[in-house]
Amino acid sequence: MAEISEHHVPEENNTKSERTGIQEDVPYLALDIGGSLIKLVYFSRHEQSPGEDEDNTDMMKALEHRSHPVHGGWLHFVKFETREINQCLDFIKFKQLHCQVGTDPENKQKGIAANVKVTGAGAHKFADLFMEKIDVMVEKEDEMDCLAIGANFLLKVIQNEAFTFVEGKKESVAIDKNDLFPYLYVNIGSGVVILKIEGDGNYEAVDGTRIGGITCWGLGRLLTKCKSFNEIIELSKRGNIKRIDLFVEDTFGDREYVEKHAQKLNAPPNMNIGSFGKTISENKTLEDCNVEDLSLSLLQMFSLNIAQIASLNARIYGIKRIFFGGSFIKDNTCALEILSSSVHYHSKGTAKAMFLRHEGFVGALGALTRYENKHGIVIMDESQDVETSLKSTFSSHDPLWNFRD
Amino acid sequence: MAEISEHHVPEENNTKSERTGIQEDVPYLALDIGGSLIKLVYFSRHEQSPGEDEDNTDMMKALEHRSHPVHGGWLHFVKFETREINQCLDFIKFKQLHCQVGTDPENKQKGIAANVKVTGAGAHKFADLFMEKIDVMVEKEDEMDCLAIGANFLLKVIQNEAFTFVEGKKESVAIDKNDLFPYLYVNIGSGVVILKIEGDGNYEAVDGTRIGGITCWGLGRLLTKCKSFNEIIELSKRGNIKRIDLFVEDTFGDREYVEKHAQKLNAPPNMNIGSFGKTISENKTLEDCNVEDLSLSLLQMFSLNIAQIASLNARIYGIKRIFFGGSFIKDNTCALEILSSSVHYHSKGTAKAMFLRHEGFVGALGALTRYENKHGIVIMDESQDVETSLKSTFSSHDPLWNFRD
Repeated sequence: MAEISEHHVPEENNTKSERTGIQEDVPYLALDIGGSLIKLVYFSRHEQSPGEDEDNTDMMKALEHRSHPVHGGWLHFVKFETREINQCLDFIKFKQLHCQVGTDPENKQKGIAANVKVTGAGAHKFADLFMEKIDVMVEKEDEMDCLAIGANFLLKVIQNEAFTFVEGKKESVAIDKNDLFPYLYVNIGSGVVILKIEGDGNYEAVDGTRIGGITCWGLGRLLTKCKSFNEIIELSKRGNIKRIDLFVEDTFGDREYVEKHAQKLNAPPNMNIGSFGKTISENKTLEDCNVEDLSLSLLQMFSLNIAQIASLNARIYGIKRIFFGGSFIKDNTCALEILSSSVHYHSKGTAKAMFLRHEGFVGALGALTRYENKHGIVIMDESQDVETSLKSTFSSHDPLWNFRD
Repeated sequence: MAEISEHHVPEENNTKSERTGIQEDVPYLALDIGGSLIKLVYFSRHEQSPGEDEDNTDMMKALEHRSHPVHGGWLHFVKFETREINQCLDFIKFKQLHCQVGTDPENKQKGIAANVKVTGAGAHKFADLFMEKIDVMVEKEDEMDCLAIGANFLLKVIQNEAFTFVEGKKESVAIDKNDLFPYLYVNIGSGVVILKIEGDGNYEAVDGTRIGGITCWGLGRLLTKCKSFNEIIELSKRGNIKRIDLFVEDTFGDREYVEKHAQKLNAPPNMNIGSFGKTISENKTLEDCNVEDLSLSLLQMFSLNIAQIASLNARIYGIKRIFFGGSFIKDNTCALEILSSSVHYHSKGTAKAMFLRHEGFVGALGALTRYENKHGIVIMDESQDVETSLKSTFSSHDPLWNFRD
């Protein structure tokens, strides 16, 4: 378990709010507003806020809500659709997540708005709305910076964060912090961003593609009339790829022949050679296809393509570990499977695919750690000597999570 | 102009057919049967066969029919849909393209079938049909071998074969045969094949993707109900990408802000960050979208993705020239444009995209050159000293086009 260690900084750095009611419970809130999803992360001392229970209507509107215990409190992870931003603002207001963040209560009384760290393209787009509806001043944080910091934070601070996907099962990977770099971090959100991370504060955005989660979801929506990306994932579980994609055995027309000549052909009969190929070879219209098959073909095609692009980059930069994050991989068994096998295939066995459990919140976590540490709280790895570390290096102007190896 | 030079080999190697009627006119025929298209190439001494005219019904059924003059005759290029293979067989039969190929008339009289070189996965699938309907024995040729030979053949033998696409115009590229290798040949057919070609007979299939022409056509068919891939290309010309894809200016919500901060954001306002993204951000259903926009987004997305994968391979292998072929690029201005600009972008300016005019027929041409040269015909580059070259190296067991630098 990671630790959030409270350090009793001198009285003049303490704010009154730290000693009073509900506001004290929520010192830090950050958001990542992407093209399709809003990711919200906040720290609180308690697992639930006062007055919060499972029947809470506002809670139910969130696409996702989970918490992770850290020493001294909880990190909470909440997700909304970007087009439903008002639900997100209602959620923040209801839980008073913004009341304390970045602003002394004195300022609040003087009518000075709270400051909240926001990353992602929506940070600018919705700044006025934040001010208008919940009296919050958006502090924009660079998206790539936040992804790089967030990935390092998760891999270094949160135990069992990384996992591999082997034969249908997640297996935790122990991360040796002294042998973490370099790695590729591939964030599959609306778009895909590929960062080469060589150390704390040392990264480069090396590649990416516009063919990411929002394209998969968009095409899925057009083809299946699904209401959410999760629906595509659920549908895909009952899909049969052989009914929609084209395989070697289809084009050769003779499985036995292909099996006999597989080595010469360099192509096993069950090799998929054309996503959606049977719509052409079998003259299918949208009405002839079932939504389960369409969903499966889409998910496979996007996962495979992203794995291929990531692997080629890994080969270019000689990198052995590719960590995938972003909401695309959440509960997406198909993606985990294809990303794992395709990275192995396309890197010619030189790179390994791994995944982050807090996949969608990497950027938001990065933004969260950017607050100046006015409350004497530092999120730290439990293996560190907290007292020594704090005494030697802590200052109230440090960010919430510092690079302290 | 390339030359097909006739060499008068001794009488015993001549066949009777060379001195008689229509059969003499068609010594060589080869096919490439892919997942979606059949590509047929044949050589004849005349531009048109006897009895052939523009009103010919069988001719009209072909998707494409063009001819290229070579010294001593014509190369003809014809295309059919694979699912309409019977049209192709009717075409061969009507024009008697198979009557002479690879078989002496004596054998024909003895009931021994003509042999025809066929490459592509369909070579096996349709072998029985060829025998049954037109009495032809299919001789299978390896697909990758044929693509590599075909690409070298076109670049070395056919003048003005390669072109770049600059500001909406095709510009011929002069190929220096002494400085041709290495290059990448990217064949965008049903699937995508990437060959690293380092010399004649010296190549490696380095990469590929199942997300190629058949997937683009398949998705286009499902989304637009189009009847052919050409229809998608035509529709795309009237499409507006801003109505369907997501751009930086959409997610930031403020073009002026983005323009001002473009450098810091590393993202110009008109940067496309999500193919089909507006279907999500603007809650669109298939009925809300128009077929022109859908077609354009599809073509751009596939072209961009293939350019990216090709460019990453070019970087891995340190290659500066990428030649694209395959039916996907035929008359596909959108693809030519995106492939050109994206190769420049994704290779970081180190590689250049070029295209082959006989784009769809690379594999079929490769198969055509594999015939043993029983008729004393050798397709040669006009710059060669034909007589010397033939006298010194010609044998009736040479392939139709040999690697004679």
